[in-house]
Amino acid sequence: MIPPWSDIVRHALMQDLGRGDLTTNILVPAKQKAEAVLIAREDLVACGLPVVAEVFRQLDERIRMLPEKPDGSGVCAGNTICTLTGPARGILTGERVALNFFQNLSAVATQTRRFVEKVEGLPVRIVDTRKTTPGLGPLQKYAVRIGGGNNHRQGLDDGVLVKENHLALAGGVREAVKRLRETVSHLMRIEVECETLEQVREALEEGVEAILLDNMDLETMRRAVAIAGGKALLEASGNVTLANVREVAETGVDLISVGALTHSAGSVDVSLRVTV
Amino acid sequence: MIPPWSDIVRHALMQDLGRGDLTTNILVPAKQKAEAVLIAREDLVACGLPVVAEVFRQLDERIRMLPEKPDGSGVCAGNTICTLTGPARGILTGERVALNFFQNLSAVATQTRRFVEKVEGLPVRIVDTRKTTPGLGPLQKYAVRIGGGNNHRQGLDDGVLVKENHLALAGGVREAVKRLRETVSHLMRIEVECETLEQVREALEEGVEAILLDNMDLETMRRAVAIAGGKALLEASGNVTLANVREVAETGVDLISVGALTHSAGSVDVSLRVTV
Amino acid sequence: MIPPWSDIVRHALMQDLGRGDLTTNILVPAKQKAEAVLIAREDLVACGLPVVAEVFRQLDERIRMLPEKPDGSGVCAGNTICTLTGPARGILTGERVALNFFQNLSAVATQTRRFVEKVEGLPVRIVDTRKTTPGLGPLQKYAVRIGGGNNHRQGLDDGVLVKENHLALAGGVREAVKRLRETVSHLMRIEVECETLEQVREALEEGVEAILLDNMDLETMRRAVAIAGGKALLEASGNVTLANVREVAETGVDLISVGALTHSAGSVDVSLRVTV
Amino acid sequence: MIPPWSDIVRHALMQDLGRGDLTTNILVPAKQKAEAVLIAREDLVACGLPVVAEVFRQLDERIRMLPEKPDGSGVCAGNTICTLTGPARGILTGERVALNFFQNLSAVATQTRRFVEKVEGLPVRIVDTRKTTPGLGPLQKYAVRIGGGNNHRQGLDDGVLVKENHLALAGGVREAVKRLRETVSHLMRIEVECETLEQVREALEEGVEAILLDNMDLETMRRAVAIAGGKALLEASGNVTLANVREVAETGVDLISVGALTHSAGSVDVSLRVTV
Amino acid sequence: MIPPWSDIVRHALMQDLGRGDLTTNILVPAKQKAEAVLIAREDLVACGLPVVAEVFRQLDERIRMLPEKPDGSGVCAGNTICTLTGPARGILTGERVALNFFQNLSAVATQTRRFVEKVEGLPVRIVDTRKTTPGLGPLQKYAVRIGGGNNHRQGLDDGVLVKENHLALAGGVREAVKRLRETVSHLMRIEVECETLEQVREALEEGVEAILLDNMDLETMRRAVAIAGGKALLEASGNVTLANVREVAETGVDLISVGALTHSAGSVDVSLRVTV
Amino acid sequence: MIPPWSDIVRHALMQDLGRGDLTTNILVPAKQKAEAVLIAREDLVACGLPVVAEVFRQLDERIRMLPEKPDGSGVCAGNTICTLTGPARGILTGERVALNFFQNLSAVATQTRRFVEKVEGLPVRIVDTRKTTPGLGPLQKYAVRIGGGNNHRQGLDDGVLVKENHLALAGGVREAVKRLRETVSHLMRIEVECETLEQVREALEEGVEAILLDNMDLETMRRAVAIAGGKALLEASGNVTLANVREVAETGVDLISVGALTHSAGSVDVSLRVTV
Repeated sequence: MIPPWSDIVRHALMQDLGRGDLTTNILVPAKQKAEAVLIAREDLVACGLPVVAEVFRQLDERIRMLPEKPDGSGVCAGNTICTLTGPARGILTGERVALNFFQNLSAVATQTRRFVEKVEGLPVRIVDTRKTTPGLGPLQKYAVRIGGGNNHRQGLDDGVLVKENHLALAGGVREAVKRLRETVSHLMRIEVECETLEQVREALEEGVEAILLDNMDLETMRRAVAIAGGKALLEASGNVTLANVREVAETGVDLISVGALTHSAGSVDVSLRVTV
Repeated sequence: MIPPWSDIVRHALMQDLGRGDLTTNILVPAKQKAEAVLIAREDLVACGLPVVAEVFRQLDERIRMLPEKPDGSGVCAGNTICTLTGPARGILTGERVALNFFQNLSAVATQTRRFVEKVEGLPVRIVDTRKTTPGLGPLQKYAVRIGGGNNHRQGLDDGVLVKENHLALAGGVREAVKRLRETVSHLMRIEVECETLEQVREALEEGVEAILLDNMDLETMRRAVAIAGGKALLEASGNVTLANVREVAETGVDLISVGALTHSAGSVDVSLRVTV
Repeated sequence: MIPPWSDIVRHALMQDLGRGDLTTNILVPAKQKAEAVLIAREDLVACGLPVVAEVFRQLDERIRMLPEKPDGSGVCAGNTICTLTGPARGILTGERVALNFFQNLSAVATQTRRFVEKVEGLPVRIVDTRKTTPGLGPLQKYAVRIGGGNNHRQGLDDGVLVKENHLALAGGVREAVKRLRETVSHLMRIEVECETLEQVREALEEGVEAILLDNMDLETMRRAVAIAGGKALLEASGNVTLANVREVAETGVDLISVGALTHSAGSVDVSLRVTV
Repeated sequence: MIPPWSDIVRHALMQDLGRGDLTTNILVPAKQKAEAVLIAREDLVACGLPVVAEVFRQLDERIRMLPEKPDGSGVCAGNTICTLTGPARGILTGERVALNFFQNLSAVATQTRRFVEKVEGLPVRIVDTRKTTPGLGPLQKYAVRIGGGNNHRQGLDDGVLVKENHLALAGGVREAVKRLRETVSHLMRIEVECETLEQVREALEEGVEAILLDNMDLETMRRAVAIAGGKALLEASGNVTLANVREVAETGVDLISVGALTHSAGSVDVSLRVTV
Repeated sequence: MIPPWSDIVRHALMQDLGRGDLTTNILVPAKQKAEAVLIAREDLVACGLPVVAEVFRQLDERIRMLPEKPDGSGVCAGNTICTLTGPARGILTGERVALNFFQNLSAVATQTRRFVEKVEGLPVRIVDTRKTTPGLGPLQKYAVRIGGGNNHRQGLDDGVLVKENHLALAGGVREAVKRLRETVSHLMRIEVECETLEQVREALEEGVEAILLDNMDLETMRRAVAIAGGKALLEASGNVTLANVREVAETGVDLISVGALTHSAGSVDVSLRVTV
Repeated sequence: MIPPWSDIVRHALMQDLGRGDLTTNILVPAKQKAEAVLIAREDLVACGLPVVAEVFRQLDERIRMLPEKPDGSGVCAGNTICTLTGPARGILTGERVALNFFQNLSAVATQTRRFVEKVEGLPVRIVDTRKTTPGLGPLQKYAVRIGGGNNHRQGLDDGVLVKENHLALAGGVREAVKRLRETVSHLMRIEVECETLEQVREALEEGVEAILLDNMDLETMRRAVAIAGGKALLEASGNVTLANVREVAETGVDLISVGALTHSAGSVDVSLRVTV
């Protein structure tokens, strides 16, 4: 399959290398070999090893990456994640770019794992949003899956989600859903973002398959669950944190979307050390 | 000048749009106009308005962006950052991508401003590192400047920084600096990363122009400043936080580099609301 | 919006022009102006005028295209479809490429219109397939809509259609649908291709939202409609022609997919003539 | 040699796959192997096997294609054209794109073969035109050769063909040919499109190497052959069909160009079936 | 028409600018305007002004270029070639790249003009070869035309020139020409490279349209002219200099090809000076 | 490492090949093998073998290149530089492009070697300038190093060189250097172009690290060396030839920049001959 990150890696390398790694090329002979390890500096869920491999492959096809903790493994601080062997130049040159990818993706997977663990045992899915870092969208959605979450839409073109601004411009829930039914592919479901219980009832009458409950409090969500009675999927959205995610899940909603999975995951601490 | 973010914006739009914004294209007529505002949901330093403008320009050249708080302005929660007017389709379609850029860049600028304010009055520069989000490097370095920081190298090709791994492979400070002097352009300065005061002394004897003090405690840094006596620029690096940055600055170093400016800035809260 | 055909047009021009139109560049002075018309040589449904405009725009921005019969109009043999004015070189150079696009897209729209007219008055949709000419997929799907048809999936990534080969590899309808439900986005419906009424029943029990009736005869389709009882959308597929499409529609299916809309539409007869 | 269809295949796959084959990736494990065959569903001349191989190679380098009927073979309905073995995912994912190419190219080769057989024994060449499907030009010209035809120009830059519109703008045959002789490379021949015998005479007097007889009836073509007396190649063009091509050939022209070879070849019926 | 040098200019600018002109951007305010002139420092034939304009257009669309001596003009040392006005930054930044193009193209045009003047009055054409600077081929061939020369082939794909190595591999002149006649487009002429008069006779018997006389002395060329008797174009090639070109022309050949027009033209002396 | 010349080679091949080498493809069977040698026709310093290898690798991966005289070797007229073995088609097709690169790069290396030999024994470096052939910059800078020279800046973005026009616009040496110190990275040195000894003194007072002595006579340069007293690197520039380079070096300057290394190196005589 066409590796989806090949171009992203190439761009990142081009931006960082420019005309080449001046320092390394002068100091390290072309023939020198090295071995290096990626080490976790805090507890984390590993994610991004295939991207790390691609970074080094593009720099020098002779560099080998041996994973010790494949994507999805929990890794404790101090443990080795993978080993790299091959020409020393490529290993030194690619260090920063490889870490930039791996640290962000592992942060997303780690953060997702925490949310998923909080709702363990309840019939609910943790889903991501489109609030991804520009350029890293597909990779971060992969990290969400690695962390145990599910993906909402991949982009604007593979799902119909009618948002507040759409409703304002289209003249309300009823009118919007009618227009969509006429043209949308018969393989698509329709989801509508609702701010009030009245909107929820209107959406149910129009037979939408999913309803996004926008920034509702716990009590209102409970009532929405009762009103829907299983006739549509309900998605809680807005201000969900590790502290309140279990309460939200206990209202009976089917999905909980969390923007923070991707947009505020930050970076976990990982380092690359030359061992030989 | 060739706008450096044109391609980055195009890639982000392509990833998010795929074959187009299904929902908007069905619900909103091509001729409908709209007005929308970008609103700060927390206190922040604005950064990224030219990128926001470029996102909407690529979607529809008729969309106009009127900045109210130009890049670098402090904005209080609830205030309007800019106004968008033009075809409604383009405004709805571009919302998420524009916010993804703006929220990250403003987070970088806001974070940088906090560090800069902490060291006010001291003769020290806050500088960034190459720990940027892949693909966003040049934009994040711009955000650092907007926040009042300075840029270290842009990439591997415009400065010589000899790091620990280089020293290990090249056989020590003396040998490394000698080799570099022979080949590096006469317009470049040489900086060496040191972990011990012994290395600092060795570097000074070789006449390097800058020394990176790697993860030293405050006392060791103070002694490095005394040893250097102004003969080389000193850069503090490693574990610098808002809590300790002023103490680090007071040791007398010339530069303090902070990876967190770019790699953990996260995202500030901003929303786009259709007003007409 | 990013014009989806800009790259397709560029490639077609590059293939045809190579280093430029030798004949025209020698014979026609750069400053000479011309006017030309696109004329229908048979009855047709016009489709592709924006692509024609793009072809000439890429060759010379000063060429203006005035549509007389916009996309979707029925045009009788002998009538003018649009007028082109501007530098003569660009008009002569772009003739063949512009016609190649317009003749194919109008053939698709014309063919689709014929099918749609055959089923007038019945509650059924004519839909296309992925059997498009390589490289022209999105344009031909646009032509289907212009002709009054609907689009099935745009590609493999925006809808779930379980085909015979999938069933063979996944171990039957039940097993396949179960695996899909676990991972597919909650905004997607599932369609299964069935060759027997037994498979239809199995699919209905699994609650799939749509069933493709693969190469069934009229009587079997009628019984499938009775079995489904409105609980899933039924799509007739295979060997549908202008001669039998109405009979197929009268079985009560909801959708009829016709590969011939795109893969055998051929080319309608249109010519470009310089008038001044 | 740079494979000329590598980019065309990549574009077709990107258009069809988008973010990947949702159905297959969920249903078929990455490690599952499969065998499949391409089967002719009507009599045809095979063409496009290297493109089929390239489609699957780009999806997964481990897929092997074993041709049974190489390009140019006559294949009877029901016979196997080639066998594919390797990872099942890639085989299912590439099916439609591979067939789209192969069905069109084989249709062109089959159509060409029919024309060539009609004129067997006569000293005449069947040649194509530039009326190709946008994006498929080079491949369709290859299919024409496989079917036993010859190629006219590849594009606007490798041959001089003065058409009616050129004559109108350049002031007639004489003037046009003179201007061309002055600048055109000494390795090019000049062909002029003539609608009347008078134009044919004028072109002969100017010493052109080839004359295109545009839409002339059989009798006029015979007289043109007599007038030319072997001093220039004559090319019959316009309204040539399988029904009249032999009569046209018997007028004594040297070349017969047939737009229908490429622009209306349509698609022959071929299917891919998983056998293991 | 697609400007053929747009990409070449873009590449040259990208290579030279990288991330921008450090020095200029710091020292010259964005709003500062300037005027500058291109001045000839030796006598030359001007060539490349549209490329100069494109260089500055890509840097800043507001820069205007006013030609004083259009391409093809003879310019004396000290004279102004064109004037540039607009933002000072763009003018300083583009100086080196613009001059690199202009100095090389004018050198080619100047060199060509010298050869053309040497053979004035004789019925012979000075033609170039494919010995161009990699990347500059089309521009240098334009410069040859500006200087009064003619172009041989543009590339390997628009003319048939059978060279010595081809003959060695194909089994001689007769065999080579026969195979070519069977497949080559009827719009192409065939030229054969001959080292002996025997080969010239063989080529004439096969009816080739042109013969390249490879490194023959003056006497042998004269005899080749006599043998050919006007039945084929003769091209002298090899070791032609300004000193001997007239003698070569007087042998009666039709074309003289000179590799030095492009591969050793070097660079004429031109400078850019800011005047305001 | 990403080979820096891969794209340059691809462009050169595309420009020369277009749709392929017509002649070779018809005359030489695909399976025919050949052996060929690159032979020096004059004394030279070899440079460009990796580029030659890349040219043939892109045409046919089976072609092997065996270097006999690696880059940097002195080669006498008549000697073999490398041997090529593999499919005959690729070898014939790539001949001209490979030679175009090799002849220019070897000319640069040969020319540089001559300058370097002239100053043997003196503590001075021969450096290049940005006066490179558009598109070949990085390769020519590589050739300079192969010839024993050093590189000045790679481009406008990796060094600060304040030129005469900058000084005119910035208000003199003092003002310019001050503004630069405020913003330039602490890893950069500053060089100023001076035309008078007064400017030299001013620059020294501002503590610049390097001074370019622009077109000064030998006596003035000697005085500049005395004034500088080792406090800044001095670079002689302007009108340096093989005839006077040693005298210039003897003034005591540290660097001598020679534009002619790259912009007028021309082309050394090399040929490719098929041996089997």
